[in-house]
Amino acid sequence: MKKNLILLAFLVFVAVGSFAQQSFRGLSETSSPKINSDNTVSFQLVAPKASEVKLLGSWMPDNARSVSMTKDEAGAWNFTTEVLPADLYLYHFEIDGLRCNDPNNVYFVRDVASVFNIFIVGGGKADLYKVSDVPHGTVASRWYDSPTNKNTRRISIYTPAGYEKSKQKYPVLYLLHGMGGDEGAWLDLGRTAQIMDNLIAQGKAKPMIVVMTNGNMAQTAAPGESSLGFYKPSFRLPKTMDGSMEESFGDVIKFVETNYRAIAKKDARAIAGLSMGGFHSLHISRFHANTFDYVGLFSPAINPRDGYKLYWIAIGKTDFLYKEVEEYKAKLDKMGITYKYKESEGGHTWTNWRDYLSEFVPMLFR
Amino acid sequence: MKKNLILLAFLVFVAVGSFAQQSFRGLSETSSPKINSDNTVSFQLVAPKASEVKLLGSWMPDNARSVSMTKDEAGAWNFTTEVLPADLYLYHFEIDGLRCNDPNNVYFVRDVASVFNIFIVGGGKADLYKVSDVPHGTVASRWYDSPTNKNTRRISIYTPAGYEKSKQKYPVLYLLHGMGGDEGAWLDLGRTAQIMDNLIAQGKAKPMIVVMTNGNMAQTAAPGESSLGFYKPSFRLPKTMDGSMEESFGDVIKFVETNYRAIAKKDARAIAGLSMGGFHSLHISRFHANTFDYVGLFSPAINPRDGYKLYWIAIGKTDFLYKEVEEYKAKLDKMGITYKYKESEGGHTWTNWRDYLSEFVPMLFR
Repeated sequence: MKKNLILLAFLVFVAVGSFAQQSFRGLSETSSPKINSDNTVSFQLVAPKASEVKLLGSWMPDNARSVSMTKDEAGAWNFTTEVLPADLYLYHFEIDGLRCNDPNNVYFVRDVASVFNIFIVGGGKADLYKVSDVPHGTVASRWYDSPTNKNTRRISIYTPAGYEKSKQKYPVLYLLHGMGGDEGAWLDLGRTAQIMDNLIAQGKAKPMIVVMTNGNMAQTAAPGESSLGFYKPSFRLPKTMDGSMEESFGDVIKFVETNYRAIAKKDARAIAGLSMGGFHSLHISRFHANTFDYVGLFSPAINPRDGYKLYWIAIGKTDFLYKEVEEYKAKLDKMGITYKYKESEGGHTWTNWRDYLSEFVPMLFR
Repeated sequence: MKKNLILLAFLVFVAVGSFAQQSFRGLSETSSPKINSDNTVSFQLVAPKASEVKLLGSWMPDNARSVSMTKDEAGAWNFTTEVLPADLYLYHFEIDGLRCNDPNNVYFVRDVASVFNIFIVGGGKADLYKVSDVPHGTVASRWYDSPTNKNTRRISIYTPAGYEKSKQKYPVLYLLHGMGGDEGAWLDLGRTAQIMDNLIAQGKAKPMIVVMTNGNMAQTAAPGESSLGFYKPSFRLPKTMDGSMEESFGDVIKFVETNYRAIAKKDARAIAGLSMGGFHSLHISRFHANTFDYVGLFSPAINPRDGYKLYWIAIGKTDFLYKEVEEYKAKLDKMGITYKYKESEGGHTWTNWRDYLSEFVPMLFR
C-alpha cells in the first residue's frame, strides 16, 4: 500500500517533471532512427519552423555527404535510406545550417571533436558489433605509471570472460588508436569489447587480454578524463609521432605483465593499430625487437624488421594512404620480408578498422 | 623525412575531410560554454536562420526552466548566466522549439531518455567532481551471475588507487541508482570515481570498493549495453520495486566477496541509494539482516530495523518526497531508532545526490 503510494508519487513526479524528466516527456512520440526489416533506415525530426533539414551519414559517399529531408504536413522531416549493408553508422542533422544531433536517439559516440548519433544495421559482420547473449569480458579503465613519460596515464583493458576465475595466463593484444583518438576510441568506435566477446564465444579467436593505450604523449588521458578538465578536443597534438610513444611502450608492457596474468613471451604478444596507431605498431615492434610475434598494420609504415609469425597490412582501396602502402609493400618485397596483405573496399574509416580487427584477431596466438 | 610526408598527408586528410573531420572543421570557431573567471557562464550558438533560441539549464528554477538567447549581427545567439554556484550542470538548447545539444561541447551525459551537455563550475564541493592529479582508482564494467534472477547482469565496480598492488582487504559501499537509472548513473551523473579519488586522496574517506548495481530487474544491463540493442530508454520499468532487487542482492554480495579482496563483515559493508535506490537500500538492509553497518537513504523509506553504526537520511527541502521523509522520521522517533538526518536546499536532483555522496562517504568504516 505504502509502496504503491510511493510509486504513485514517482509517477506524479514524472508528470510534473524535474529537469531531466521534462525533456524525457517531450521525446516519447518520435522514434528515430527506425531500422526497417529490409535494412533501409528511416529518420524523423519534428522541426515545423525549419526551412531546410539535411541528414549527414557515414554511409553516404565522400562527395555527397548529405541528403535533404522532406517535410510532411505535421512539420516532421523524414528520410528513408536505401538498403544499407550491415555496419555501425554515424549520423547527425543540419537544420538551416546548424549541426544538431538526433534528440530521439540517446546512442552516440565522440570522434575527435564531434559527437555523432549511432545505429547498427545487423546481420553478417555487424552482428559482431552487437552485445550478444554470450559470456562477457570485463572492461576496465585504469591508470599506470609511466616512468619514461614521468607521469601516470590512463589505459583501457579488456579481459576475456572467465579471466577472473581462471588461473591460466593469457596472450595479449596491444591495440592502438589513430590521430585524434585516445584510450576510448577502440572501445567506443571500434566496438572492441563486443567483437572480442563474440569472436571468443564463437571459438574464432583465442581468449586474450586487449590493451588499449593512449598514444598522445601530450595527454595523460582522453579529453575530459584528465586534470585538464573539459576542453575542446583537437585532432593534431604534439608528441604523437616523434618516437616518445615507442620509447615509453616498455612501461605499458611492464604494467600489463606485472598486473595481469599475461604470458610474457614473444609468441603471446600481438600489436596492431589503425592509421597513426599502425605507424606506432610498426615502430614499437621494431624498437622493442623480439617482443611481438604478431603485428597488424591497419595503415602504412616504414622500415620493418623480419621475424614475426604474422605481419599483416590492411588498407582500403580509396584510403588516402593507399599509395604509401603500395610503396611500402614494394620495399618489403624487395627485402624479401614476409607479410600478409588485405585490400578492402572503402577508405580511412572505422568501418574498415572494425573489419580489420574482426579479421586480425582470429589469426592471433594459433 | 618520410615521417614528415606522412604527417603532411594526415594534415591534407584533415583539410580534405573524412566524415568525422568534416564536422570537426566546422566547429573550431565557436567556444561554448565558457566558464568565466567570475563563475558566470557564457553560451554561444551560431544559428543565423533561427527565429528563437532558448537555453534550458539545470541551474534554472523549476518554474522557469529556460531563458531566451540574444542574436548578434553575425547570427550568433548568446547568453551569459548570473554567477553560478560550484556544481556540475546540465543544459541543452531549444531552437524554434526543437531540442538540440550544443554542437561545440563534446561532454554530455544521458539521463533516462535524454542526452544533456554538461559543464563544471569549479571551487568548493565541485572540485570533488573534477579529475585531479591524485592517485586514481580503477573503474570496471563486469558481468556477474545472478542465480536468483536466472541471468547474468552488468555491474560497475570502483576499486581505490593501490588496490591491485596491495594485499589488504577493503570495506565495500554498495551504491544504488534511482528510477530511470542503471549501473552507469552514479559514475556518469554522480561523478563517483572522481568523488572517491578526491576524498580518499584528501584523507577524508577510507579507501573502499564501491559497487554500483543495476536495480532494474527487467534489464540485465543499461540501455544499449545488453542484447536488447539500442532501444529508447524509459523511465518506468517493471520489477523495480517488487522485492526482486532485495531478494537477489545476496548474489551481488557473494560476487563481490568472492571476486574482490572485500572484508566480509557487517562493519565493513555500507549500502546507500538515491530515490528508488534509497528505497532499495532500506529494504535490502532489512531483508539481509545483520549484513550492513552503514545505511544511507538519499530518499524515503518504510519500517527500518535498528542496529546500524550509521543510518543516514538526506532530503532536499523542495523534494517531492519531503513529506514522506517527515512521516518516516516521526515513525523512527516513535520507535526510538537512532538515525542521522541531513536536510539540504533544493529538490530531487543529482546536485543533491553528489553532495550526499560526498558527505556520506567520509562517515563510513571509521
